[in-house]
Amino acid sequence: MALEQTHDDLSVFPTDLAAADPGELRRIFRTGNYTGTTAGMATDRTQGNLVILPKDLALDFARFCQRNPKPCPLVGVSDTGNPDLWMLGEDIDIRTDIPAYKLYRHGQLMDTPSDVRDFWNEDSVAFVIGCSFSFEQALMDAGIGLRHIERGTVVPMYKTSIACTPSGPFKGGMVVSMRPMTHEQAIRAVEVTSRFDHTHGVPVHVGDPSIIGISDIDTPDWGDPTDFKPGEIPVFWACGVTPQNVIQEAEVPLVITHAPGRMLITDLPTWKK
Amino acid sequence: MALEQTHDDLSVFPTDLAAADPGELRRIFRTGNYTGTTAGMATDRTQGNLVILPKDLALDFARFCQRNPKPCPLVGVSDTGNPDLWMLGEDIDIRTDIPAYKLYRHGQLMDTPSDVRDFWNEDSVAFVIGCSFSFEQALMDAGIGLRHIERGTVVPMYKTSIACTPSGPFKGGMVVSMRPMTHEQAIRAVEVTSRFDHTHGVPVHVGDPSIIGISDIDTPDWGDPTDFKPGEIPVFWACGVTPQNVIQEAEVPLVITHAPGRMLITDLPTWKK
Repeated sequence: MALEQTHDDLSVFPTDLAAADPGELRRIFRTGNYTGTTAGMATDRTQGNLVILPKDLALDFARFCQRNPKPCPLVGVSDTGNPDLWMLGEDIDIRTDIPAYKLYRHGQLMDTPSDVRDFWNEDSVAFVIGCSFSFEQALMDAGIGLRHIERGTVVPMYKTSIACTPSGPFKGGMVVSMRPMTHEQAIRAVEVTSRFDHTHGVPVHVGDPSIIGISDIDTPDWGDPTDFKPGEIPVFWACGVTPQNVIQEAEVPLVITHAPGRMLITDLPTWKK
Repeated sequence: MALEQTHDDLSVFPTDLAAADPGELRRIFRTGNYTGTTAGMATDRTQGNLVILPKDLALDFARFCQRNPKPCPLVGVSDTGNPDLWMLGEDIDIRTDIPAYKLYRHGQLMDTPSDVRDFWNEDSVAFVIGCSFSFEQALMDAGIGLRHIERGTVVPMYKTSIACTPSGPFKGGMVVSMRPMTHEQAIRAVEVTSRFDHTHGVPVHVGDPSIIGISDIDTPDWGDPTDFKPGEIPVFWACGVTPQNVIQEAEVPLVITHAPGRMLITDLPTWKK
């Protein structure tokens, strides 16, 4: 989602969003006055997906992430009950420092609040999982244009037949995102993303979508369809929507996630492993 | 420790230990008749350090590993109470398939048994952490001779002033291993080990030992001292002894580890990330 579409007050932001201080951005989000995307902000810092679970599910979910590092690369895990994510930056309150959250009860979306202070308790554990913003910036820096960014659309995402390695109640198919590229760009993209293990790493598949159980490339399960230019093939990456999908299907009593496109901006540089 | 030093019956082993089937090796260890090192065995498979903890400490330890991936690269975590490490290979019983174990109560070594069936229960969680055998093989394959292997000694290891990121009761200084190299070899070693994140990855330091709090390079805290040839500098890697050291200092009521040099041989190829 483009920043313009959010109807938020943008005058509070520093002029150069891409080079903005991550702490300054989080303090703006903390006020609750901005609920839009974090795409394009502090592009030299790692951004992350959020999952908050009660502690009796936390070990199973930590194991799920360890067993499925491509869709679920763990960037950080809070101490139990402590909303201060001290290991990811200075003065991060995970209950307030993301522009918008989603609240699910037994797999059903209940609310999209701008803070979750009322739902955090001494049993809460926050998981921060790498997102594709960092590797997309690296791909563009390497001269590979990204269709969905050029078009201002949301990257197409698909359910696949690639089974995640299960852990306790968490199991299911991997979700992938897709970017059209020439064969030459696809090779360069593998090379570039091989340095970004913490943000999904190298592609999980290149070429024929049916091999990973995608029957219609023009009908993504999330995001917008995309067009292919002559000579382009689809390149598929493991996607951070996977854990949200898996958690929803596990029908956890209460789970909090970030709202799509509204990420935690950490202090960690994007290259940090 | 060299294989010859263990006084075990070696006639049961396949002739080519380096190319041996990992399942066949585990079945030999399972009999309890061999309690020696796994160095040099199944060199194309990932070997791992073992830590078994009760489940109420498992989340804190999983977080410790996630926060300290260089000394504690998690290769796999068992389901709670299930000794079958199905995610690391076929028919692995973690209670019996390592040649020798160590049992600590409140930080004190109590026993060095060849199986731990009597101590595994429904609350047990097994953590397998990458070890240096894999990257040492890759270094040798790249033409970098390793002094301790040439000499038949144990690699020197040192406590350092590099603080691990704490998690619950687990905290303390990082332990490093050291290998003497020329400057040219040190650069090549960084390049080679950058592909081995699951076995400690790139060095944590090169050169002056005092910078990381090592006062006397000739007096390691574990292993044997080593000599330097003219033009060689010390190259330091995060070491799998770190978690054992940290756990001992946390004075956990009961913890089981592998005995030094007696690793779990998994089915995973060494290059698998």
